[in-house]
Amino acid sequence: MKINIQEMVKKNIRELKAYKPEEILCPIRMEANENPFTINSSLKERVLESISRISLNRYPDSLATDLRKQISAKSGIKPESIIVGNGSDELIQMLITAFCENEDKVLFPVPTFSMFGIIAKSFGVNTIEIPLDSEWDIDLAEIKKSYEKNLPKIIFLSTPNNPTGNCFSENKILDIIEKTYSLVVVDEAYADFCGKTFIDQLKHSKNLIILKTLSKVGMAGLRVGYLIASKEIINILHKIRLPYNSNSLSQGAAKVILTNNEIVESQVQQIIKGREFLLEELKKLKDKEGITPFHSNANFILFKTEKDADAIHRKLTEEGVLIRNLNSDGPLKNCLRVTVGRPEENDAFIKALKKVAQ
Amino acid sequence: MKINIQEMVKKNIRELKAYKPEEILCPIRMEANENPFTINSSLKERVLESISRISLNRYPDSLATDLRKQISAKSGIKPESIIVGNGSDELIQMLITAFCENEDKVLFPVPTFSMFGIIAKSFGVNTIEIPLDSEWDIDLAEIKKSYEKNLPKIIFLSTPNNPTGNCFSENKILDIIEKTYSLVVVDEAYADFCGKTFIDQLKHSKNLIILKTLSKVGMAGLRVGYLIASKEIINILHKIRLPYNSNSLSQGAAKVILTNNEIVESQVQQIIKGREFLLEELKKLKDKEGITPFHSNANFILFKTEKDADAIHRKLTEEGVLIRNLNSDGPLKNCLRVTVGRPEENDAFIKALKKVAQ
Repeated sequence: MKINIQEMVKKNIRELKAYKPEEILCPIRMEANENPFTINSSLKERVLESISRISLNRYPDSLATDLRKQISAKSGIKPESIIVGNGSDELIQMLITAFCENEDKVLFPVPTFSMFGIIAKSFGVNTIEIPLDSEWDIDLAEIKKSYEKNLPKIIFLSTPNNPTGNCFSENKILDIIEKTYSLVVVDEAYADFCGKTFIDQLKHSKNLIILKTLSKVGMAGLRVGYLIASKEIINILHKIRLPYNSNSLSQGAAKVILTNNEIVESQVQQIIKGREFLLEELKKLKDKEGITPFHSNANFILFKTEKDADAIHRKLTEEGVLIRNLNSDGPLKNCLRVTVGRPEENDAFIKALKKVAQ
Repeated sequence: MKINIQEMVKKNIRELKAYKPEEILCPIRMEANENPFTINSSLKERVLESISRISLNRYPDSLATDLRKQISAKSGIKPESIIVGNGSDELIQMLITAFCENEDKVLFPVPTFSMFGIIAKSFGVNTIEIPLDSEWDIDLAEIKKSYEKNLPKIIFLSTPNNPTGNCFSENKILDIIEKTYSLVVVDEAYADFCGKTFIDQLKHSKNLIILKTLSKVGMAGLRVGYLIASKEIINILHKIRLPYNSNSLSQGAAKVILTNNEIVESQVQQIIKGREFLLEELKKLKDKEGITPFHSNANFILFKTEKDADAIHRKLTEEGVLIRNLNSDGPLKNCLRVTVGRPEENDAFIKALKKVAQ
């Protein structure tokens, strides 16, 4: 008998592939839905000053107390209703770990944020994918039908939705929250770019959970996500949270940046302006270049190409502009996603796209 | 029908309690097995300089390429045999996620590092706990008997073992690695304080996995652990690793500190000296104070008290010295654990212990 490692792996893991972020080196990076602006030198100074006072040899504050207080001061949510994760990814993992047995199901519309499905599958939890309608909105009738049949433990709704960019209808989301007994996770990763939030609904709906992240507003490198829910749900998640899941440096840096929130807010406004600029410019590329952009409430725009999207994507990288290639069979056929860049990056992208899509 | 959140929680999670690090405020903290020394101002300067060049708005390097290269340069292990985690805790979680179905079992001697059991239980995996022998060494006969009966998927061995402080017999560990078909995880979190490692055994044993951490040698705040194993095992773990599990700041800071490894090494030597000092001093407290220290190869010392350990622990905190109270029914009855401190902290601890244990 010899050791066969592959046979020891859990069955549902064997067929998974490792998630690999795009690694093409391009001077202009508009592929990862990051904030394209860095922080100014005065804020950077304050971040470094704060970091210099952290004792690296000591474990972090397990409860991220100061950071949660700062989030609370900014949002009005009580600190005890907030739990911090090593990115939203870890919070999704915690939710599935706490609530889903093997036979349980999670439901989400597709296309959407890929980690809902990837994480569920890595835990052997069944995923139910309900296609969005032709407007990229939730297909409420289909979700309800599937809910009755499958009774999913968790329903994930990302609004604005990635990669489509639109907000789902508020009424449909409320209907799902109020008329199901699932945990409804509203992922508001991109909500800063449209100003809509379901936080007010938390006091009415104990099955509602809201996910937030600092990754889209300028702090992707820190890996700080947070989850807002009833104290009851928060306390359950603390049971399975790794004691030191959030490191000292990220807690410290995030706290300082959030204290100077007007800088983040002004960058968000610039990104919204950039999005509207890109939308207008992309609309002009219909006739000659065959480009059709979709409406966006986020910091990125999804667009369809008449010509082969793979070729356009490849040629754009040759022009030094990296965007996200989502081309695959199904609703995203010939679809590409561009993250809003700095003004000069937006110009360069439009110029390059005109050149390669003609 | 009303929503009952508690009924939605996985059964195995319901009975768990959240892990709460000790939160007593004391000027002298010798409870968490941290390195008591901070880095000097010149190294801190270099860390801050490196951090100042990181774009916080961009996602981290998913593969922690530079950090793994630096670990490789220091250890001689190939970068592709290393995977970085958000602390060892996350790596333990990844191992259980990848390899353990619900009915699977993991085995470890007790007392040992509590997270092996806590994480396994949070995933509903069965734990088999085999008591250490009277010398705190592995009970090889009992482990083998249990192995035959239970065929555990993973065996966790922490050496030097926390909280007992001793290294397990090398021959017994080798016997377990070579004569079982389990994955054998040797947790070398404290190995820097004794110089022993099983890295050389990796080329002979494809079921061997080694865990390392930077938490005990001065970087607990960063949350950087790493796992060394065959490329086959590493590739399996990448399938379920969250894409950005290690943040940019911690990767950057750890890389700089490891580049200046002579500082870490000199601190390790000072800690070993401090441990030997504490051991000698504790041995002197047998007759009058009723203290019996156990031999240690780590950066902490376990000791037994004749009087009530809870009272001694409480009185020590009143004296401003926080150590770890492990007093519980079973082999750790009246046991306390003290982490080696700076020389003046070691003196203060001994002085306080003499006072409160008399």
